[in-house]
Amino acid sequence: MKKYEQITEYLQQFLNDEVHKTGLENVVLGLSGGIDSAVVAVLAQKVFKDNLLCVKMPSHYSSQSSLIDADELCQNFGLKSVTASIEPMLRVYEELNPDMDNLRKGNFSARLRMATIFDISAKQKALVLGTSNKSELLLGYGTIYGDLACAINPIGDLYKSEIYELAEYLGVPESIIKKAPSADLWSGQSDEADLGYTYAQLDEMLKLYAEEKLSKEEMVQMGYNKEMIDMILSRISRNQFKGKMPVIAKLTSNNIL
Amino acid sequence: MKKYEQITEYLQQFLNDEVHKTGLENVVLGLSGGIDSAVVAVLAQKVFKDNLLCVKMPSHYSSQSSLIDADELCQNFGLKSVTASIEPMLRVYEELNPDMDNLRKGNFSARLRMATIFDISAKQKALVLGTSNKSELLLGYGTIYGDLACAINPIGDLYKSEIYELAEYLGVPESIIKKAPSADLWSGQSDEADLGYTYAQLDEMLKLYAEEKLSKEEMVQMGYNKEMIDMILSRISRNQFKGKMPVIAKLTSNNIL
Repeated sequence: MKKYEQITEYLQQFLNDEVHKTGLENVVLGLSGGIDSAVVAVLAQKVFKDNLLCVKMPSHYSSQSSLIDADELCQNFGLKSVTASIEPMLRVYEELNPDMDNLRKGNFSARLRMATIFDISAKQKALVLGTSNKSELLLGYGTIYGDLACAINPIGDLYKSEIYELAEYLGVPESIIKKAPSADLWSGQSDEADLGYTYAQLDEMLKLYAEEKLSKEEMVQMGYNKEMIDMILSRISRNQFKGKMPVIAKLTSNNIL
Repeated sequence: MKKYEQITEYLQQFLNDEVHKTGLENVVLGLSGGIDSAVVAVLAQKVFKDNLLCVKMPSHYSSQSSLIDADELCQNFGLKSVTASIEPMLRVYEELNPDMDNLRKGNFSARLRMATIFDISAKQKALVLGTSNKSELLLGYGTIYGDLACAINPIGDLYKSEIYELAEYLGVPESIIKKAPSADLWSGQSDEADLGYTYAQLDEMLKLYAEEKLSKEEMVQMGYNKEMIDMILSRISRNQFKGKMPVIAKLTSNNIL
């Protein structure tokens, strides 16, 4: 576990440096009961102690087990936490928009959580920590201006499979590590069912693409499943906008002005 | 008005190109009754006709005159519009958080509007047009993940003073052009009171800084007000993060992984 000892040390130094150079001393993060936010919470707790506030933001779609898992983590690590449910806001919007499908509900929920955690950060004079991992960021598996929104993200360069190993190293409870990965946006949602492959499969190929810079043809020649490659490359290209600022019409640099 | 004829033509071509290359045909935008969204609506209407939907998202803090102004614009230009009030969501959140000051309420409102317009864009299979001008973007006078969030912004390279001239050229109603600029986030809010100077003053100095690349010392030597220069430079530096993606801890490029 030498690797994760070094990573932990590096990420804690990163958190410490990045937060303090803004002049702020406090951090907040949304704690879902899933593995990503658990890892960020444990990393941040060692750096910020009581200046870390974990915010649970359930809705009527959150599974009971997520809340129990989040509570277990808070107890085990002595994390300071509050609950700010998005349920009342989501319900009034759903009543006015009965035609919303699961995808719209999921994205809307993620954005209500963003609005809530940023409001709490203003109240606490705190920075918002992000909890998106590298697999999600590459695949664009997240809500722009929702869960992808934050000030500082310590785990954005770690693949989901590495998050599991880091979680083990950090002592995150087994109940969180062992359950199927889910954004918990609707009952029974499964990341791996949504994406069509396991994170183990996806990460193997993402690494060849993003770290080894292999082309599609090279991956096919190596015997990888062509459908899976196509799905991954299509997601990366379709969702690239999520990692970029809005497109602004340039008048000055085009000599229009 | 040759200048604004050319700008209008360029921006309409930009909108047409940027939207169609995504494969979508529809656009939506939040119409506040203010001059910026009015200008974007009139520009977009000429390009997208009935594929443009303007969304009015008032709250209990919106002034009655903003709604009247937005309606007048829709009538004059035959704009298709709907109302999606954020009031019910904002009220339930405010009841649970009675300690919110105006700034928190304003940012929260901007984010509820973002969540609403992006949900409507999903329903309409549409792109969200942004309505932030260059003065606001440089000064960071806007809510990150709120009104600053969009897919495409046609007016982000135009100073507020240019927006006024473009609005005249496009035939935006005088009621919208003549009133004091306000984000309308609370009763009586004035952009120029918030910022401490008029947009005419601010834009003059912003242009020296951003276009002429003058230093603080050069501007002081030219006789500009030192306090105003300090305020502007401090805002630009403090709010730079609003124009950037979140900071991600880099492990791969730092040879940690």
